[in-house]
Amino acid sequence: MNDISINEVRNWAITAGQTALSYFGHVESRRKADRSFVTEADETIERQIVAAISARHPDHGVLGEEQANTHLEREFVWVVDPIDGTAAFVAGLGSWCVSIGLLRYGQPYLGVIYVPTLGDCYYAESTGDAYLNEQTIHVISPDVWDGEHWLATPASLHRRFDLDFIGKTRVLGSTAAQICYVARGSALGALLVDARSWDVAAGLAILRAAGGAIAPLDPAVSTSATPLEGAWLSEPLLVAAPQQIERLRSAFRPQAPR
Amino acid sequence: MNDISINEVRNWAITAGQTALSYFGHVESRRKADRSFVTEADETIERQIVAAISARHPDHGVLGEEQANTHLEREFVWVVDPIDGTAAFVAGLGSWCVSIGLLRYGQPYLGVIYVPTLGDCYYAESTGDAYLNEQTIHVISPDVWDGEHWLATPASLHRRFDLDFIGKTRVLGSTAAQICYVARGSALGALLVDARSWDVAAGLAILRAAGGAIAPLDPAVSTSATPLEGAWLSEPLLVAAPQQIERLRSAFRPQAPR
Repeated sequence: MNDISINEVRNWAITAGQTALSYFGHVESRRKADRSFVTEADETIERQIVAAISARHPDHGVLGEEQANTHLEREFVWVVDPIDGTAAFVAGLGSWCVSIGLLRYGQPYLGVIYVPTLGDCYYAESTGDAYLNEQTIHVISPDVWDGEHWLATPASLHRRFDLDFIGKTRVLGSTAAQICYVARGSALGALLVDARSWDVAAGLAILRAAGGAIAPLDPAVSTSATPLEGAWLSEPLLVAAPQQIERLRSAFRPQAPR
Repeated sequence: MNDISINEVRNWAITAGQTALSYFGHVESRRKADRSFVTEADETIERQIVAAISARHPDHGVLGEEQANTHLEREFVWVVDPIDGTAAFVAGLGSWCVSIGLLRYGQPYLGVIYVPTLGDCYYAESTGDAYLNEQTIHVISPDVWDGEHWLATPASLHRRFDLDFIGKTRVLGSTAAQICYVARGSALGALLVDARSWDVAAGLAILRAAGGAIAPLDPAVSTSATPLEGAWLSEPLLVAAPQQIERLRSAFRPQAPR
């Protein structure tokens, strides 16, 4: 275990981000089978990161959004999203990021998320603090919500939920970035929908180290599974300080079918 | 008139953006009388830009978000928003921008909007095309909307409107940036609320040169006034290709008071 270096993982993420920036603003996108976007940048960067992982940790498994899927039964499995927020990337928005997580026995163990347009690198190990660049970060838990507090909400909020909230919403277009803005204490909370394990693996390590929690929006959903199992990820999920979860649950109401 | 150089204005905006970046990530914010944020960066940058304008065009008026308000009766009036999206700036989001517009007899004459985190400079003169960096840009007007089309919506959408739209929303936190993403053909349209003249003066020059239109969401609002007059700006406004305005009008429905 001692051969896992978070500084090395940060370097992988930053190098990948620089590659992504070289494509940003002039890349052709294609639709995947699920109609979401993929670009040559996603595929190139995933290959880059997976090659670095495999060279350094040949005994670990690797799961990537685009192609990689090897040895998922191993103790350590890396979970890579080369560009989280590909649609934002294609749209010329700056909120996409590179996400590299490491699971141990299926639990978040280490996470690095890099936002290339801002030079912001978020990271945490399984023990210790969460960081943004060289500063420790922590979730916020205000007693009173006001008009300047904000929630990171999904691009489909208008079709799926009514929201009773005095403050602002922001739609960033990246699940991993949503989690980071909660972890750093900028957003009060986030609602994640249609999350996949590569969107959240790194973010959850950072979120927990920053004092945050993740929970299904619907309290009836069993919390005995781990957040990275399918039974959880198919549900809308809240990310916030633990003390804010119940209040956020009552702010979001699923819409009746129209 | 021949002494107005858009390249000079672009340089003012880029220089201002570099100053803003030097504050970004480590700036104290205060609340203004209306409870919105202002920072030392806003005030410093406005002084920088206004000094450049006054030195070059002493016979022109200048209106700035933070302080400037001189000779608004002149033929040419510059309208400056040093940081449009200050709350996003304070939150560590990258979608804020520098906006410098020039009005002639109250009408948009020239606009430059610079997004420093992306290095994106949008600009247009009263005649000619709209540009993003060195490329011409144009609004889009698809016949059929799909799930990947997106609208730039305000942070208060959830409190004020229901939206019947198959695609995505993004909340950028900057009115000027919203207009630019429509002008470049990335967003299908935008809904602007609580716009002030410094949020839109530059954007409207760019939007029109890119083939776009602005119109009140409520068709009963008189369109005889100009978009920069208060009677318009107090209304929710749609920004899109002209052919898309009617369809967008029926997508946004004001909520009943709760």
